[in-house]
Amino acid sequence: MSRSTPRTMSFVISFAMSPGLRPGLFDDAAMRRLAALGTVRTEVIDDLSRPEARAALRDTHVLVTGWGSPLLDPAALAASRLQAVVHAGGTVKNHLSDEFWDSGIAVSSAADANAVPVAEYTVAQVLLANKELDAMRAAYRSERTTADWHTRFPAAGNYRRTVGVVGASRIGRRVLALLAAFDLDLLLHDPHVDDETARRLGARRVTLDEIFRESDVVTLHAPDLPETRHLADARRLALMRPGAVLINTARGGLVDTAALTEAVVSGRVRAVLDVTEPEILPADSPLYDHPGVVLTPHVAGSVGGELRRLGDAAVDEVDSWIRTGMFRTPVHPETLAITA
Amino acid sequence: MSRSTPRTMSFVISFAMSPGLRPGLFDDAAMRRLAALGTVRTEVIDDLSRPEARAALRDTHVLVTGWGSPLLDPAALAASRLQAVVHAGGTVKNHLSDEFWDSGIAVSSAADANAVPVAEYTVAQVLLANKELDAMRAAYRSERTTADWHTRFPAAGNYRRTVGVVGASRIGRRVLALLAAFDLDLLLHDPHVDDETARRLGARRVTLDEIFRESDVVTLHAPDLPETRHLADARRLALMRPGAVLINTARGGLVDTAALTEAVVSGRVRAVLDVTEPEILPADSPLYDHPGVVLTPHVAGSVGGELRRLGDAAVDEVDSWIRTGMFRTPVHPETLAITA
Repeated sequence: MSRSTPRTMSFVISFAMSPGLRPGLFDDAAMRRLAALGTVRTEVIDDLSRPEARAALRDTHVLVTGWGSPLLDPAALAASRLQAVVHAGGTVKNHLSDEFWDSGIAVSSAADANAVPVAEYTVAQVLLANKELDAMRAAYRSERTTADWHTRFPAAGNYRRTVGVVGASRIGRRVLALLAAFDLDLLLHDPHVDDETARRLGARRVTLDEIFRESDVVTLHAPDLPETRHLADARRLALMRPGAVLINTARGGLVDTAALTEAVVSGRVRAVLDVTEPEILPADSPLYDHPGVVLTPHVAGSVGGELRRLGDAAVDEVDSWIRTGMFRTPVHPETLAITA
Repeated sequence: MSRSTPRTMSFVISFAMSPGLRPGLFDDAAMRRLAALGTVRTEVIDDLSRPEARAALRDTHVLVTGWGSPLLDPAALAASRLQAVVHAGGTVKNHLSDEFWDSGIAVSSAADANAVPVAEYTVAQVLLANKELDAMRAAYRSERTTADWHTRFPAAGNYRRTVGVVGASRIGRRVLALLAAFDLDLLLHDPHVDDETARRLGARRVTLDEIFRESDVVTLHAPDLPETRHLADARRLALMRPGAVLINTARGGLVDTAALTEAVVSGRVRAVLDVTEPEILPADSPLYDHPGVVLTPHVAGSVGGELRRLGDAAVDEVDSWIRTGMFRTPVHPETLAITA
């Protein structure tokens, strides 16, 4: 069996995800690549209570999943031919049950591809936040004249500022790699990373309290676990430098929203929030309108045309599985406990 | 004479710039480094009509200049000991006359250091503009609920978008180098660059019309010359893709403001403008408030804490001149005609 020839043309490839998501993930070129690898069932499996959906799953060898995929628990998988699940998204925790992993079915995800836009969003926000660009933009809009910006924003800019990354996750590592191109001092906190690994990632390893105390920008890239809940609490927010910025693109539960709101409203800290707890803030939250806040609706990850990056990554993995029986970005159940 | 020992301790180092700018450019550490290289006169030369200022200039061997430096024409330099001008800023065109170059005085500038923040600003704006983040942020702020962002912003993101760079200037090249880290197709137009050089810079060389026609973002990094005046005119703006973005961090004169305003107000194109013509837009310009515009007050370059990058670069050059008689980033008069 050569690596460059499909092992067989009899693979059945199906989709399981929210109805309507498939065309955004897979453009014509991606669908043609899949069609060259097996028999593609274009009807999307979205509700395993339907007998036809269960029958379609039973006939499938490679299941391509996306957001909104039904839960694949042992009952759903009974008597199926399923060999591999390729997730065109980040976390698989929402559709693969704990018991799923006993099935021996191989799993891959596009978490690497999904990390890309989050890291890009973070880097852009770091650069603009240190630059205090939102404040300069607002001042110019309201005053419509020139001013001595150097005197009004004496600390502005990205020269020798300190950025603290919480979590050497795949997103955290990508953020560190991208930030290495700039004149910034990088700090890292991750309980699973030692000094030498931090150095290799271009950062100095510090404690969580030190990250909050020493950074001009603190950016969160940790998983949502009992031990990370509200890691940005009132005490740590009080450690932050005046005017420092908290960026959260990870999970709302990492931040004590009430404490952050107070710190922002008092003018002590600024924030860039793509996720919050609750996911949609109450309509009267001051975070919507405060000039020290950039608030975006959970879109730092793949959105719009970025869905095609996830789809293309999934097709690469289907290709790899069918040609070689291996994935390039497999998901290992033992690492799920410490990842997003 | 060793490279590591100052050639003499008798060098007199003076400053010529806007009053009050010096402490922003040179912090205590930078001043200590200068003091180790020669006799530093801390009174700043800002008006050469004053006899004391002319006397101070005559005694100076190395003049460190900044924004607002008086014009150094032959009359100002008469009978001076001046050997070198080190500019802690970008262009030297405002304080060195055409006749200055006959004096044989060596010139250096911090144009490389000044390119850094402009390139950073540009890269951050490219990432956020392709992501359509301003529009998502505004929608969330006004609606305060979730939405199907994929459907509302089907093209959003930085996956396989095309960014066109106009001008392989030091800023343009730095922008190309930084953008190479992302999943973007890069185009370049510069009349002085051939296909091979463009390829080396990570871009495909195209015509100016092609840049406007094929890019999702067009970013201007060309000098302000008669032949570049209004290069973004009504005709070229009409070539742009619907929703495409024009970024101008270079010079206001590169863009026909009236034509751009019309294109923006019609909703056809978006813009990120750090410079405009006139420099301060009329108070009734629609560009101040239009949701498709990011308008900032000529701050993409060094501002606030970024002045220290210019100061540190200038100290490096004073050090290099005094120790070796050479600059690391000299300014050559013959290239001034095609640079900013």
